[in-house]
Amino acid sequence: MPSRLRSRPPIVLLTDFGYRDHYAGVMRGVIAKIAPAASVLDITHGVPPQSIMAGALTLRESWRYFPDGTIFVAVVDPGVGTARAPIAVDTRARARFVGPDNGLLWLAANEAEIKTIVRLTSPRYRLPAVSNTFHGRDIFAPTGAHLWLGARLTNFGPRVETIERIDLGAPARTARSLRGQIVYVDGFGNLVSNIDRASVARLKASFPALGLWVTIEGSAPMKILDAYADAPKGAPLATFGSFDLLEVAVRDADAARRFKAAVGSPVMVAAHPS
Amino acid sequence: MPSRLRSRPPIVLLTDFGYRDHYAGVMRGVIAKIAPAASVLDITHGVPPQSIMAGALTLRESWRYFPDGTIFVAVVDPGVGTARAPIAVDTRARARFVGPDNGLLWLAANEAEIKTIVRLTSPRYRLPAVSNTFHGRDIFAPTGAHLWLGARLTNFGPRVETIERIDLGAPARTARSLRGQIVYVDGFGNLVSNIDRASVARLKASFPALGLWVTIEGSAPMKILDAYADAPKGAPLATFGSFDLLEVAVRDADAARRFKAAVGSPVMVAAHPS
Amino acid sequence: MPSRLRSRPPIVLLTDFGYRDHYAGVMRGVIAKIAPAASVLDITHGVPPQSIMAGALTLRESWRYFPDGTIFVAVVDPGVGTARAPIAVDTRARARFVGPDNGLLWLAANEAEIKTIVRLTSPRYRLPAVSNTFHGRDIFAPTGAHLWLGARLTNFGPRVETIERIDLGAPARTARSLRGQIVYVDGFGNLVSNIDRASVARLKASFPALGLWVTIEGSAPMKILDAYADAPKGAPLATFGSFDLLEVAVRDADAARRFKAAVGSPVMVAAHPS
Repeated sequence: MPSRLRSRPPIVLLTDFGYRDHYAGVMRGVIAKIAPAASVLDITHGVPPQSIMAGALTLRESWRYFPDGTIFVAVVDPGVGTARAPIAVDTRARARFVGPDNGLLWLAANEAEIKTIVRLTSPRYRLPAVSNTFHGRDIFAPTGAHLWLGARLTNFGPRVETIERIDLGAPARTARSLRGQIVYVDGFGNLVSNIDRASVARLKASFPALGLWVTIEGSAPMKILDAYADAPKGAPLATFGSFDLLEVAVRDADAARRFKAAVGSPVMVAAHPS
Repeated sequence: MPSRLRSRPPIVLLTDFGYRDHYAGVMRGVIAKIAPAASVLDITHGVPPQSIMAGALTLRESWRYFPDGTIFVAVVDPGVGTARAPIAVDTRARARFVGPDNGLLWLAANEAEIKTIVRLTSPRYRLPAVSNTFHGRDIFAPTGAHLWLGARLTNFGPRVETIERIDLGAPARTARSLRGQIVYVDGFGNLVSNIDRASVARLKASFPALGLWVTIEGSAPMKILDAYADAPKGAPLATFGSFDLLEVAVRDADAARRFKAAVGSPVMVAAHPS
Repeated sequence: MPSRLRSRPPIVLLTDFGYRDHYAGVMRGVIAKIAPAASVLDITHGVPPQSIMAGALTLRESWRYFPDGTIFVAVVDPGVGTARAPIAVDTRARARFVGPDNGLLWLAANEAEIKTIVRLTSPRYRLPAVSNTFHGRDIFAPTGAHLWLGARLTNFGPRVETIERIDLGAPARTARSLRGQIVYVDGFGNLVSNIDRASVARLKASFPALGLWVTIEGSAPMKILDAYADAPKGAPLATFGSFDLLEVAVRDADAARRFKAAVGSPVMVAAHPS
């Protein structure tokens, strides 16, 4: 087997199409028809419907774990069929990103350092008929497959200079506290905030004699622990989870349900005597 | 790598086994054991449990996007273990379909133009022990794998002449309206009806001076738009979606929930002054 | 294509990571980066969150349907980041199992006959940074990939003699009855008990003139049928399902909902005149 082929990076899908319908499956079919030798992997198709921020965060947390040169096809696309452009992005890290220009690609592509952005206009790399409701099938999957086959990015359409951005928001610092908000809720009910490790470290450095306490939606103050299982069963805790952002969890249970918290819920880290 | 192998079409799965249990995974295992080089793709395992119509529609909407010669193994099988036959179907479009003879295969196989139907009786192409509850594992997955390896369809059992049919029902035309019903609800809550584009075009042609208005479950009349995003956020609309059937949606929201509508809900398209 | 590569068994994943987040996808990425030619299959990522027993049962019901030599990477890991060891197990049946030592691997590995157990300590076969929250990504996926590439099990860390066990519990026999409990509820709502076929056969043999009747949560007594569809539509029944354990189902409906039953619900089989 020629290692040339085998060492080719995969096409990786991330969508909000869910697992009930055939939409994600049809994208796999379209790719298999154009590039039968391509390996196609899923990050997930379970992004909350039309939640661009959740998709953008998920893509940012995932891309660097995939092989060098991977082609990511991401579709969370409430504006399908309107003026929002379909784009493809090449990066200095050699990851390529294909999807709608609505902010979905920004967090990952920015981290991978954007080199080239192209608007997908060439009819050559689309299905013959393009619907107004399913560009995942008609534009994005074919684009990923043709990129995989070696088509040059700049053949897909004109270069553009900017990409739509999306922003987690920075936590606000007061004298003795950080105020942020929940930006992602995972399937275990863990509540991921926009409070990063460096901000927490700076707060701690300002008050070395004090403890740091986390509160959410009127909860009792929680310590920041190293692992979920450092809390007793059923107890709430804060930790830096796999996103490397401060998250609120409940040991062996669902924190979103416990605290009736959701994306947007405010979270505070405050320095107090322990 | 011999292109002979690489260019072989995939085996494609569609079931109602869901994503909680091991049932779909075990089918993949059975195939990997018999045909380790086969590429296995999923359309979905999330067909609503035991909903033959939803499975049949999903298969019809998917099959033509997969490579020429694909082997589809479809299992929505409330009658497993009873007299309903396990079958395999070859078609003029070269797609092959394997599954229970309960209507599930009809819509897709009919579109692909049925050539040969075989009842799966040969013990050679089954697992050694066949249960009464899991023919996906014991009969259908092995059949797909052996077909992929090149076994001839007619070796699997006796030819049969007919296949169980299933029917979306045609919309009813009155003087100024079409009356149909919801036949599929997708994971976004979009409500797909059995009203096709041609019937709507004929109604429009009869009343060129009038507008067409869609209603469902006592909703206000909706226009037929080109794309979801042509409606304001949160507003209901009708459009021809990816099924190319009239569907009722709500921009960035869940129409099934909004209208308390489900499979079977009546839908009407009527010609009125705009 | 060298059959040496093609005949290599797959890496097979089973987790409770769900389908909403990127966790399972990131594991696939990590494996693709280390072992790009490995075929990776999913049993499921839908094990009920942190339910070690459900994961253990699912793995036991699945492993034997996969190719000889398959590497199973299983992660249901409420104790991640604590003292519970990460392990890999080789078996006489040639299946290998990788995961946390919390009972998850026991039922399958025991059935496959444990040969060697190793504690995963070598930094060489982990990601460079190991978090306290996501060993699926940082330890278990890399271990599976390196095993696939041919690394020897004993290079991963020191041998250990025992593995954490988990137990379905045996049904209790009284003079005329067997009392067990529900140990798994599948996605169709079928209620799988810990009552095995041999125990039921012994009860029947003691009372050849009597019928056997199954009850759960105050239900009317049910007969043990051969197939779901031997009951009328909507009627409850008992049968030996694909687990080969006694299960309670409702024809074309959800038994868990009908009987308000769950894992732990008591089930009885009693000999009575029919």
